[in-house]
Amino acid sequence: MNKYNSPGFAHIRLADPVLEKRLDVCIKSTIPAAVSKTIETNRINAFDIKNYHGERHIYWDSDVAKVLEGIANALTIQPDEKLLSVLTDWIDKIVDCQQEDGYLNSYFSGENASDRWKNLRSWHELYCAGHLMEAAVAAKDLPGGKKFLDAMCRYADCICDVFGPGENQRRGWPGHEEIELALIRLYQATGNKRYLKQAQYFINDRGTTPNVFLEEDPGFTGMLINLQADKPVREMTEAYGHAVRAVYLYAGMVDLAKETNDSELLAVCEKIFDNIRTKRMYVTGGIGSSFKGETFTKDYDLANGSLMYAESCAAMGLVQLAYRLFNCTGKDIYLDVLETALYNSVPAGISLAGEEFFYTNYLEVDSNLQTYNYGSPVRQKWFSCSCCPTSFCRFLTQTGKFLYSVSDNEICVNIPAANFSELSVGSQTVKLRIEGNYPYDGNVRIFIESDAIFSLRLRIPGWCRSYQIKCCGKVYDSPVISRQWRTGDVVELDLDMPVDTVFCNPQVTNNTGRIALRRGPVVYALEEIDQSAPVRELIIDTQEPMTLTSVPGLPEGTPAISGSAIREFFEDDSLYSVSSPEYQTLPFIAIPYALWQNRGPSNMSVWVRFFSR
Amino acid sequence: MNKYNSPGFAHIRLADPVLEKRLDVCIKSTIPAAVSKTIETNRINAFDIKNYHGERHIYWDSDVAKVLEGIANALTIQPDEKLLSVLTDWIDKIVDCQQEDGYLNSYFSGENASDRWKNLRSWHELYCAGHLMEAAVAAKDLPGGKKFLDAMCRYADCICDVFGPGENQRRGWPGHEEIELALIRLYQATGNKRYLKQAQYFINDRGTTPNVFLEEDPGFTGMLINLQADKPVREMTEAYGHAVRAVYLYAGMVDLAKETNDSELLAVCEKIFDNIRTKRMYVTGGIGSSFKGETFTKDYDLANGSLMYAESCAAMGLVQLAYRLFNCTGKDIYLDVLETALYNSVPAGISLAGEEFFYTNYLEVDSNLQTYNYGSPVRQKWFSCSCCPTSFCRFLTQTGKFLYSVSDNEICVNIPAANFSELSVGSQTVKLRIEGNYPYDGNVRIFIESDAIFSLRLRIPGWCRSYQIKCCGKVYDSPVISRQWRTGDVVELDLDMPVDTVFCNPQVTNNTGRIALRRGPVVYALEEIDQSAPVRELIIDTQEPMTLTSVPGLPEGTPAISGSAIREFFEDDSLYSVSSPEYQTLPFIAIPYALWQNRGPSNMSVWVRFFSR
Repeated sequence: MNKYNSPGFAHIRLADPVLEKRLDVCIKSTIPAAVSKTIETNRINAFDIKNYHGERHIYWDSDVAKVLEGIANALTIQPDEKLLSVLTDWIDKIVDCQQEDGYLNSYFSGENASDRWKNLRSWHELYCAGHLMEAAVAAKDLPGGKKFLDAMCRYADCICDVFGPGENQRRGWPGHEEIELALIRLYQATGNKRYLKQAQYFINDRGTTPNVFLEEDPGFTGMLINLQADKPVREMTEAYGHAVRAVYLYAGMVDLAKETNDSELLAVCEKIFDNIRTKRMYVTGGIGSSFKGETFTKDYDLANGSLMYAESCAAMGLVQLAYRLFNCTGKDIYLDVLETALYNSVPAGISLAGEEFFYTNYLEVDSNLQTYNYGSPVRQKWFSCSCCPTSFCRFLTQTGKFLYSVSDNEICVNIPAANFSELSVGSQTVKLRIEGNYPYDGNVRIFIESDAIFSLRLRIPGWCRSYQIKCCGKVYDSPVISRQWRTGDVVELDLDMPVDTVFCNPQVTNNTGRIALRRGPVVYALEEIDQSAPVRELIIDTQEPMTLTSVPGLPEGTPAISGSAIREFFEDDSLYSVSSPEYQTLPFIAIPYALWQNRGPSNMSVWVRFFSR
Repeated sequence: MNKYNSPGFAHIRLADPVLEKRLDVCIKSTIPAAVSKTIETNRINAFDIKNYHGERHIYWDSDVAKVLEGIANALTIQPDEKLLSVLTDWIDKIVDCQQEDGYLNSYFSGENASDRWKNLRSWHELYCAGHLMEAAVAAKDLPGGKKFLDAMCRYADCICDVFGPGENQRRGWPGHEEIELALIRLYQATGNKRYLKQAQYFINDRGTTPNVFLEEDPGFTGMLINLQADKPVREMTEAYGHAVRAVYLYAGMVDLAKETNDSELLAVCEKIFDNIRTKRMYVTGGIGSSFKGETFTKDYDLANGSLMYAESCAAMGLVQLAYRLFNCTGKDIYLDVLETALYNSVPAGISLAGEEFFYTNYLEVDSNLQTYNYGSPVRQKWFSCSCCPTSFCRFLTQTGKFLYSVSDNEICVNIPAANFSELSVGSQTVKLRIEGNYPYDGNVRIFIESDAIFSLRLRIPGWCRSYQIKCCGKVYDSPVISRQWRTGDVVELDLDMPVDTVFCNPQVTNNTGRIALRRGPVVYALEEIDQSAPVRELIIDTQEPMTLTSVPGLPEGTPAISGSAIREFFEDDSLYSVSSPEYQTLPFIAIPYALWQNRGPSNMSVWVRFFSR
């Protein structure tokens, strides 16, 4: 149950070609842009109950909190005077908004105060509270952090007073889960068990009878399953409903299981995750395949085009969930999902420049098809409900932590991306350095820069079918090396990384007859801008060799894949014909999916028809 | 412009295996069921303004009118005491509802009278008026018919008084087109040119500036294109907006062009039709590919599954439009479309039993895919807006007319389905008898049973690539045979009818890598109930022979197609794999698309993957 813990990201310095670049852009561009938008749109002014009388929204506090958490993370990594002044200024403004009883919400104070806790199902108060708590924990060791954390503890106390099974309490569940994992994080930061117990209440009471949301609003005709509120969480066996809500709930459930040693609850989470991983996840790690309610749908229903969703926030949530499950169980399947989402669905949601975002992460864009989804196939700077941009602020700044999991006597290298790190293993502090070009090259070297005794566990990714491990020149069969390490020891990990053709179970109707290309953990896509014919007309010839190449307009060193395709087309524009289409052989180029739509709008497809003799 | 006219259906007795059966079921089951529903749901009671105070709807009159037109058609074909009493009873009830000034609408009389003509865009008054007029024309020679026709002329006069460019008139357009073709039909039945001129006004004024719908409701934020009201009709080059509205408008435009010798307007109609035929029509003849607004979308956007629409009413409207365009121009392309819709998209909309209906005519149903469309993949008995069932009542009863077009000196055999007929050619009356099993067999014999001089034009269908014509034993090269015919002359037409594999232009993204099977005009589908594996997993082997067979549960003599397929599947239930799927050879069975879902719910697909070495 407590196999591993996260080492956090404070002492991990990225030096790889992908995550480090994304982190750098996040701190230099994404966060400053989000700060500007937060100010411009009055999201921060909204906390000034006395003087600000403009527009407010029920979800604005969460946007502010997520940007603030990103700022706190950034400041944990490196000093930045401008961001520090934003941090202290915003903390002051937020805390000023706190009511006498600890309640803190920029919408339900002042003139809307009488609506407080009136509509738990839809009004996002507990959701906003959770994000504020997470921001406070992230900032706790920074200037202003203690004040913020104290305020958030008072708010948590207020929530603990109001909701629960006690005589002077009312039953209540969040309509958008988040408070559960936030309360546990607050417990971890403060040691106050009351917050853990409150999270336990929210999780265990959810979905029990009588249903809180139906008691609150007997006329509710929506679907309780969309809110994961139809049954007790321990009875769940599949992932359903709004995907972001879902993975936030499951993450809170894993945290609770871990903190309370609740193996039954952990088993529920593993079962649900298995359903996601084996039936309801895009090859890119995207989840929540329907635009309608932004929801999971059913097994094998993975539309690629204008119906799909795969929200950026959901992919980030999946990474956090997978990381938690790996740390509890040590099972590699969780890291495979983590890595898939981390290198594909998550970064696809943000432009290389860091200031444009997808809500919806399409796997196929085709200008001949009508758009039904309200997600644009071009990244946008901001959204009226701007959860995705603000999620990137807090997510990308903490990616370092996913590289490792640690225990009292073991370091697990989850993802061998280049970095310098200082990890605590029991009472020892271990310095490590990883060199290499992962994920674009499977050959990495791990330098031990401390004398210490521990097991080094090298994860062999699910995508890898052949590898070699050497320690100080000697070949090892096992990926776990336990020894007295000496400064200067070198472990070499060589993961064979050919171009893989990935087939999809034909139960997924949309992908029959199609393959996706993948190399290492990186999923590729054909963007029309790189082809000499429409993507929809291309059939990849899997018998012809595929080689690595480069394409203009993408970061130096990004490996593109070049191969041979057969183009299927009509010579005329007739709609139907009894004559076979024409065929011609053409080269094709595939680029990492995460980098698509960085060179203007374009048709694109991850799943492409294939031809094999 | 006046190449041909319709001979009407009164003197054409069907004797073929498809149309005759559908007609028979329509008269025996569809119409009686629709009569019951019309009574049960109070649609007919609603005309009793004084005594009926229940629910009413703005579109109910059109449903009643369409059933009544079907009854009138049925009585024109054969006597039926029960239907006759319904006819006279309903005519009395409808006419009783007429106001002093001629206005007649069950919703906008009585308590809603003050809303009369208040919302032309959405309230369907002119649409309902048009259907009532069409019913009156259909019934004009039957008991009660004169009374009904007189009443409808008074209503038409009322409409002519109110709407127009005159000083004491107001401008107005119907929000749902229908009144245009109805007024022309009324003109043809009465000779009163006022009705023709009024249709001309509605058509020519439509879409001009200032826009009537925006003047009526300046706050309207919907899309004028959905109503074909964004520009003058003569400026249109493509089919757009709500598909049923669109084809009703175009049919009215063709009628107007024919009656007024307006070649410019005819050219517009031909151009729009060309856009439908070559870019926006399903292989089954279905049109209006989006459930969103029930609309045409854009070129090559033809979703097969849960997004699509292809409303039954639109297919019936397309047949009527194509027939009009053929009669004006004599161009075979119109008959090809007419025949495609008549044998595929139209009959698919109604069960063989005649009492269940599709609104949406899917080309693919797959239980692994989420449903977005609100159309059920199982036929329903009735709908709250029951346009499709009532359209079948009036449509199926008039199908005989489509078999022929006539001029002063020519008979064109449009569709050589078996029948006995008596056609007027100039001043001559010609009796014809066609024998054969068309559309299931391309070999037919046409018996001339009168002495007369005329040209017999045999249409060579677009799907036919080889044929032979013999007249009195002698082979003819030309499909037009002009001569002095004698009773007993026999023309033999042998249309070669192999199983065709139809390819779709790869611009249609949804159909890439897929074929449809067609034999003669009949499009086939694979229904899962007939296969030993899921349809989505089947790949048709086009190099293996396909033969005709029969399947249980379909009408005796229905040719199914049997062939060889390769099944592509995963041996386990893994979602993604780098191992190639498994393959096995299996037989497949295809049935006429029009007959699917007559043996319970089932997955189904018209477009199926194909394999050719």
